[in-house]
Amino acid sequence: QGTRDHPPAHMALRDRLLAAVVACFKRHGAAAIDTPALELQETLMGKYGEDVKLIYKLQDQGGELLALRYDLTVPFARYLAMNKITNMKRYHIAKVYRRDNPATTRGRYREFYQCDFDIAGQFDPMIPDAECLKIVHEILSDLQLGDFLIKVNDRRILNGVFAVCGIPESKFITTCSTVDKLDKMPWEEVRSEMVGEKGLSPEAADRIGEYVQLHGGLDLIERLLQDPKLSQNKLAKEGLGDMKLLFEYLTLFGITGKISFDLSLARGLDYYTGVIFEAVLLQQENDHVEEAVSVGSVAGGGRYDGLVGMFDPKGRKVPCVGVSIGIERIFSILEQRVKASGEKVRTTETQVLVATPQKHFLAARLKLISELWDAGIKAEMLYKKDPKLLKQLQYCEDTGIPLAAIVGEQELIDGVVKLRDVTTREEVRM
Amino acid sequence: QGTRDHPPAHMALRDRLLAAVVACFKRHGAAAIDTPALELQETLMGKYGEDVKLIYKLQDQGGELLALRYDLTVPFARYLAMNKITNMKRYHIAKVYRRDNPATTRGRYREFYQCDFDIAGQFDPMIPDAECLKIVHEILSDLQLGDFLIKVNDRRILNGVFAVCGIPESKFITTCSTVDKLDKMPWEEVRSEMVGEKGLSPEAADRIGEYVQLHGGLDLIERLLQDPKLSQNKLAKEGLGDMKLLFEYLTLFGITGKISFDLSLARGLDYYTGVIFEAVLLQQENDHVEEAVSVGSVAGGGRYDGLVGMFDPKGRKVPCVGVSIGIERIFSILEQRVKASGEKVRTTETQVLVATPQKHFLAARLKLISELWDAGIKAEMLYKKDPKLLKQLQYCEDTGIPLAAIVGEQELIDGVVKLRDVTTREEVRM
Repeated sequence: QGTRDHPPAHMALRDRLLAAVVACFKRHGAAAIDTPALELQETLMGKYGEDVKLIYKLQDQGGELLALRYDLTVPFARYLAMNKITNMKRYHIAKVYRRDNPATTRGRYREFYQCDFDIAGQFDPMIPDAECLKIVHEILSDLQLGDFLIKVNDRRILNGVFAVCGIPESKFITTCSTVDKLDKMPWEEVRSEMVGEKGLSPEAADRIGEYVQLHGGLDLIERLLQDPKLSQNKLAKEGLGDMKLLFEYLTLFGITGKISFDLSLARGLDYYTGVIFEAVLLQQENDHVEEAVSVGSVAGGGRYDGLVGMFDPKGRKVPCVGVSIGIERIFSILEQRVKASGEKVRTTETQVLVATPQKHFLAARLKLISELWDAGIKAEMLYKKDPKLLKQLQYCEDTGIPLAAIVGEQELIDGVVKLRDVTTREEVRM
Repeated sequence: QGTRDHPPAHMALRDRLLAAVVACFKRHGAAAIDTPALELQETLMGKYGEDVKLIYKLQDQGGELLALRYDLTVPFARYLAMNKITNMKRYHIAKVYRRDNPATTRGRYREFYQCDFDIAGQFDPMIPDAECLKIVHEILSDLQLGDFLIKVNDRRILNGVFAVCGIPESKFITTCSTVDKLDKMPWEEVRSEMVGEKGLSPEAADRIGEYVQLHGGLDLIERLLQDPKLSQNKLAKEGLGDMKLLFEYLTLFGITGKISFDLSLARGLDYYTGVIFEAVLLQQENDHVEEAVSVGSVAGGGRYDGLVGMFDPKGRKVPCVGVSIGIERIFSILEQRVKASGEKVRTTETQVLVATPQKHFLAARLKLISELWDAGIKAEMLYKKDPKLLKQLQYCEDTGIPLAAIVGEQELIDGVVKLRDVTTREEVRM
């Protein structure tokens, strides 16, 4: 339940998509790593908050207690700590596993690919962070998925907002997860969850509401830097200062047009410590980004400076920032688009079918196809001793093979092959 | 235990290796599929004989009882039956899981890649079987692993041998698994296992010994076809007839030089029903294949005509033949070779480092690198505001980046970039 087989047509599209993502990661100088799909259960504990219940555990068959990885970020942090690596730019494309309620129609499965790019190391502020946003921008542009928006926020700004609104620190995380629902429900509902379920005072909730409904660009950052309350909060000031720097770098990259500083963005995971971001596709009902409707997140990420330290015996920190491309959701969109267009995706790359119009030419076909393979040419033949020519040509048409190399009695005598263009039916002897 | 992280140097080599294998599979017209790493436990039961104990089971957390796949062949058969596919040529490259005693020094792990190519469908005899052997030949030749030998046998011939030697059918499988040890122990030991543990009569064991120590080519097939006892056995006769046909096709492919019809080859798995084969690398101590020492199996496969039917509600059979490339063992060999040669494997593909010799040029660098990325050029920069030029050039040398694009005060004034060849130190302004 919640998993699926990928037939050849899926795989052809998927390979195309992954190739575009990998090309971008390589363009940015990332190296590939891989880690086991199995991790020690203890490695995964205490990293995912309430989602711990979604982790697949293996049966205790003797030996270590194992679980299937839940994402690629925790294994990456474990890998860095275990190998004492303090500096690395890597990508990792692999399957992860979640015992979630699958919503397969929206491209959500229990087994799915993640495509992660992360930069680990102590660097000058916001330079790697800006590159992560550039990568999201490049990939979503390359894939021509339509208009998109990258929302950016910072956990320090959010925590600063909570602090100046009088929320006790012990309620930061739970308040954060309520704020995160603002993309799915109106403020009134979020407010009543804060007051009703989370126990915030109505006044505190209203004060939060004034902040978290804001979104904009450099102008908003400047305004908040002047905000009498927020500017007094150390965390918020730091976050806003870095946000300003980020926008400077994004301006140099020429991509601020698709970036929105959005105080409602909170993101679910516990381990984020700084910049957070999420890319959404916009339905193009009109030209105004503000009025367009979001069709869901297709990329996300952020800074997590504390995670590696959790795996180091001495708690040594390695600051990290990274991005995860939501390949499954993108795949669902592309799949629907291919289906709608009626485009026939070829599932093989065969260039030529070795065929014969006569009986008793199996040996000649085997000899010819062997020569083609040895010359690096992608070639097939029907596995019949004496197939009908019509069947052979039909196979070409069905599978999109452009050429047929035909060998019969006359060709064998003349020492030639008849090469036929399947579509135009033109033939040349060679 | 028994798993490993793959650092960038591994991945670079692994990607090269997998690319060669995939290229060969595509050359033969195969389409890719993927299946979940998780299968229902019941799907895997009764397919692997005694090895069932090596299957990783998942904890019962509610819902279906799951296990990690043990190979790619059973999931392929399940996929064909589930989708009622009677005809398919596919490859599948993915990780499989075995709770084995790992022998990591010999490239044996609990999580490892399998690279499978299979042809499913009802065809004329031995044409797809011959193609599988051609594929093994192509891949091992392409990878330049040194001299190799592909041993071929047929389960029908083995069973025929057992029958004419007076073994009861109930002991065929267990006798088969003892014969399979002939590549690791001398005949005397195999014989005493047959008599001691498996309860065969000494005479029957000796009769088997006369057959299973034979290996050769077309001549041996012809001789056995004339063998007074074996030629009377229906199964053996069928198997030998097909073996002769196979050798004819392999002769047309020009690869019989590396093929040995070897009656000691039995292969462990229960599900084989016809041709079986296994490729071994030979240590090149001298030029005689016969006297060389085997360093282990690097590919194997065979025909399994009954497996798909086990998953079909009506038991409808789909004949299959396939090959699995032992990518992990090949990887171990290549890795040792790279280590011995001192060759430095690049782990990234970065073409140019955007650098500066002066302070306060971060903005210029960000602008330039963004242009390069947008032009599809693989580019990196150091994530420092003001890095030293020496450090930047050192980074190029350490990671093998061939070019540095240098922007400083003069370049900015002139509107140019200085492109430096890191190795020759030549510079051009452009």
